[in-house]
Amino acid sequence: MKVAFIGLGSMGAPIARHILEAGHDLTVYNRTESKAKPLLDAGAQWADSPRQVVRDAECLVTMLSDDMALNAVLMGEGGALEGMEKDTVHVSMSTLSVEYAQQVFDYHHTLDVNYVAAPVFGRPDMAEAKKLWVLAAGPRKGIEAARPIMEAAGQGVIDLGDNPTAANSVKLAGNFMIAAMMETLGEAFAFVRKSGVGAEPFLEIMNGKIFRSPIYENYGSQIAQGRFEPAGFRLSLGLKDLRFVLAAAQAVGAPMPLASLIHDNYLGAVARGMGDLDWSALARVASANAGLGDVDADD
Amino acid sequence: MKVAFIGLGSMGAPIARHILEAGHDLTVYNRTESKAKPLLDAGAQWADSPRQVVRDAECLVTMLSDDMALNAVLMGEGGALEGMEKDTVHVSMSTLSVEYAQQVFDYHHTLDVNYVAAPVFGRPDMAEAKKLWVLAAGPRKGIEAARPIMEAAGQGVIDLGDNPTAANSVKLAGNFMIAAMMETLGEAFAFVRKSGVGAEPFLEIMNGKIFRSPIYENYGSQIAQGRFEPAGFRLSLGLKDLRFVLAAAQAVGAPMPLASLIHDNYLGAVARGMGDLDWSALARVASANAGLGDVDADD
Amino acid sequence: MKVAFIGLGSMGAPIARHILEAGHDLTVYNRTESKAKPLLDAGAQWADSPRQVVRDAECLVTMLSDDMALNAVLMGEGGALEGMEKDTVHVSMSTLSVEYAQQVFDYHHTLDVNYVAAPVFGRPDMAEAKKLWVLAAGPRKGIEAARPIMEAAGQGVIDLGDNPTAANSVKLAGNFMIAAMMETLGEAFAFVRKSGVGAEPFLEIMNGKIFRSPIYENYGSQIAQGRFEPAGFRLSLGLKDLRFVLAAAQAVGAPMPLASLIHDNYLGAVARGMGDLDWSALARVASANAGLGDVDADD
Amino acid sequence: MKVAFIGLGSMGAPIARHILEAGHDLTVYNRTESKAKPLLDAGAQWADSPRQVVRDAECLVTMLSDDMALNAVLMGEGGALEGMEKDTVHVSMSTLSVEYAQQVFDYHHTLDVNYVAAPVFGRPDMAEAKKLWVLAAGPRKGIEAARPIMEAAGQGVIDLGDNPTAANSVKLAGNFMIAAMMETLGEAFAFVRKSGVGAEPFLEIMNGKIFRSPIYENYGSQIAQGRFEPAGFRLSLGLKDLRFVLAAAQAVGAPMPLASLIHDNYLGAVARGMGDLDWSALARVASANAGLGDVDADD
Repeated sequence: MKVAFIGLGSMGAPIARHILEAGHDLTVYNRTESKAKPLLDAGAQWADSPRQVVRDAECLVTMLSDDMALNAVLMGEGGALEGMEKDTVHVSMSTLSVEYAQQVFDYHHTLDVNYVAAPVFGRPDMAEAKKLWVLAAGPRKGIEAARPIMEAAGQGVIDLGDNPTAANSVKLAGNFMIAAMMETLGEAFAFVRKSGVGAEPFLEIMNGKIFRSPIYENYGSQIAQGRFEPAGFRLSLGLKDLRFVLAAAQAVGAPMPLASLIHDNYLGAVARGMGDLDWSALARVASANAGLGDVDADD
Repeated sequence: MKVAFIGLGSMGAPIARHILEAGHDLTVYNRTESKAKPLLDAGAQWADSPRQVVRDAECLVTMLSDDMALNAVLMGEGGALEGMEKDTVHVSMSTLSVEYAQQVFDYHHTLDVNYVAAPVFGRPDMAEAKKLWVLAAGPRKGIEAARPIMEAAGQGVIDLGDNPTAANSVKLAGNFMIAAMMETLGEAFAFVRKSGVGAEPFLEIMNGKIFRSPIYENYGSQIAQGRFEPAGFRLSLGLKDLRFVLAAAQAVGAPMPLASLIHDNYLGAVARGMGDLDWSALARVASANAGLGDVDADD
Repeated sequence: MKVAFIGLGSMGAPIARHILEAGHDLTVYNRTESKAKPLLDAGAQWADSPRQVVRDAECLVTMLSDDMALNAVLMGEGGALEGMEKDTVHVSMSTLSVEYAQQVFDYHHTLDVNYVAAPVFGRPDMAEAKKLWVLAAGPRKGIEAARPIMEAAGQGVIDLGDNPTAANSVKLAGNFMIAAMMETLGEAFAFVRKSGVGAEPFLEIMNGKIFRSPIYENYGSQIAQGRFEPAGFRLSLGLKDLRFVLAAAQAVGAPMPLASLIHDNYLGAVARGMGDLDWSALARVASANAGLGDVDADD
Repeated sequence: MKVAFIGLGSMGAPIARHILEAGHDLTVYNRTESKAKPLLDAGAQWADSPRQVVRDAECLVTMLSDDMALNAVLMGEGGALEGMEKDTVHVSMSTLSVEYAQQVFDYHHTLDVNYVAAPVFGRPDMAEAKKLWVLAAGPRKGIEAARPIMEAAGQGVIDLGDNPTAANSVKLAGNFMIAAMMETLGEAFAFVRKSGVGAEPFLEIMNGKIFRSPIYENYGSQIAQGRFEPAGFRLSLGLKDLRFVLAAAQAVGAPMPLASLIHDNYLGAVARGMGDLDWSALARVASANAGLGDVDADD
């Protein structure tokens, strides 16, 4: 299949590689050209603009950091959308606000381009290992046409039906759940540490015996050990996602006080210069509030 | 070993049975005598008071609903403590406030009775299936002496060292983590439902692919299906535990805003008549606040 | 002075009347024409569109319910902006989001129309009584030119300097402070009522002796007596303002957990059908959470 | 009237002086004897113990920092209660937990001593100026007998009826309302400062035009100027009062999420070493969370 790919960051690059390795014909565009080097060496082709990269493509895959970055490559002169053929498919993997996701979907509709919302769960190391999960929602024929591409991208595709915003809502709710786990760990660790129990043995009990969840294990260890660099997912992006969750929750009329609490803690963390740490550094807010300088100090 | 057991509720009764089945010599006391029937039929003996039940016992096990209930059987005339021999062991399985745990420990110390704090993780069905985890902390010789009894009670003993309050802190922090998961599920379900995605398929994605935790599965299903009766652990007891968490956190100087949020929601749920539902009905607060009458209505 | 006025709602109509009574030459436009009747009877003139109303005007005053409503009368074909002369003044009294306020300001700048942000403090009865306070910020010459109009609108003009967003920030922060007072009253009343003290005698003590504030008196009495209709300011507009506060706070990096709490309570109140009550009905959330059916039941 | 007075701190000393100046016969006891010097010079007498100070007294006034301090002077050997005559009156001015207030009331009842709960509103400077308000509740004859003493203490007595816990509930609810005002000011100031508006001009608008409350003025100026020393009321005592509010609210079943938020912020402030500042330093938490080092830096 002839695939165009835009966005070769820490998530996009490994996904593009998996698609190439699955035998598809890949053309790539990225704002910073140097990031494309390994893919070009492996057989992908380069295009000089979003408009160029979609020429003759059956499928466009985008993986960008936010609404604005996606909008910039899709719209305006030289944008990808004006170059896409009728009935081709756009597989949109970025985490978008529900509001923008609806707009972009409507716009594709007027152009008769299939828009498949396809946000993913997983971090860069999982992308490398082809362990991502792809949440797909959109027009049936678009999903079916792009299925091989989405399957190549990760370990599986979760089909969420016709309404593309469903995939965005699920992605946002999922990130909320992960952030809530981190807030929980942050408060629990601060409490047990001040009660004389170490964060690591406590985690060993709680996850080893009770939760038995790989994601508690991973984030829990990071937090217990104070390992917040390099960022798998930057805290400032965590703030953005929580903002999107709250905006979407507001739009549908669902109060989420825990999401508000987490949002406010992320906002404070960014205001105090922690925006480039991993988003699990949320837990540092709870330990700082308890007068524990940092979470790796005394465990 | 000669064991006295006080407290044959939905947790205590199956624990007592496992101890009996492990071959120990068991004498029981319970406020409501009828609950002892199955154990007596299986070979246990009855005693008419806390004072009587500990006569000649090497080990006393207590499993009561709160500080007050434990205090009532231990203290005063006819109380168990005045009948206990020096160097015997009290295995205290109730979830206690950290404040009371310290008091009761000090009092045992003056009597030369070994006090082993031994709160458990697990609900009645896990108690039946001998799947509880026992958190043990206290004097080394007490823990060693009582180890066979604690091992008979569940699937394993987690040794937390000399300080009995450590076991209580870990138990409270653990219950906080479980309640935090329920608050998280409540808010996430309300949000996705109002966004057009069912709670059950959402849970299937989030737990099946991301969290992969048996406890998310169990509580998540209960909440998604609105099954809050019969209560495995009553919501009014959940409120009590959150109160204990906050009191303990206050004592050590660790602010826990998420615990406060959950506490307030539990308090409101009890004020509105939900105290006898399962504590997972916490999630109903989030759905009610979103104008969703009940969580089982439209999934 | 020749003044155009758009927006004759419960706030706009009395303001327009005061301007007319101050001797200015007034032309009005409103979506619903019938609301203009009393003003026309008093000597104002009617215009059929936003474009028409500004013809020859030296000053345009707008008082609309939100960003969208203002945008609709300013922009596009037949919009007011295309008809405004260079160096005239737009006195913009609506409570706007900080984000939109900046956009609209920039747009006026490109047209050489002076944009004066002029949000007001006060409710309809204060507008009638010419008791509003006008917060003015914008280009110096615009403020000076429009000063007689703004002075005619209320009891005084508060000059906030050159930056129009300052007026919007102050207005939003002010509405947050009022909402915070109502949340405070709601929780305090629920607590004292459940402790056996009536809301009204409690208010009499707290405001009569301690706060001595007319605004505690007014809102406090409304809440203590459960008078939430007719709405002086609708709860759904209160939700909008809190959303604007949080968006603005997010933009400048200031976490506001109390604003988040209030926002979530407003959102829940709207989700449960209370959007058309007065925004002081926020207090009903606290009383409902305490199991008190309604605040006027037992005082 | 023959009056015994225990507790000559920054609140108690001026109250005792006013009672003496009103012509009553005053005997005092204080843990630190030196603090009694000015009163003795003015004609009061000294007693060496709580037991001694109440000898022949018709009325005992206590003003101590908390439950424990009051309990220490009342109970046990040498305690004041064993020395009090039947039908005398104890005017208890300390801010107590509702739980302890009930216990101490019951105990007086068994001794036939009238217990009048008489917490006060006001800080040391108001105590000096005889501007305190006394909230009185208890047995009718006790209130009437002690009225001249309570009237001497401040600018007025607010009679709250027979149930002494009502006075404590009102006092706690009042302190909650003041703390809520400070949290509000803290968040609003951080927001406007980051939006380019100074805290002082903002306060001038909000209090000068809208709230018009002396207490907003006083606390607002302190906060805007970062004057948190010397403490009129220590932050660690503010934490205690919020803990009492939450315990009392829990007991009656009234969730108070704003009180929880404030409590958590106070707890964090104490954990970070701010316990001896004035309780208005609560506002510093909001400014620190917004990355503003301190509130007095740039206004």
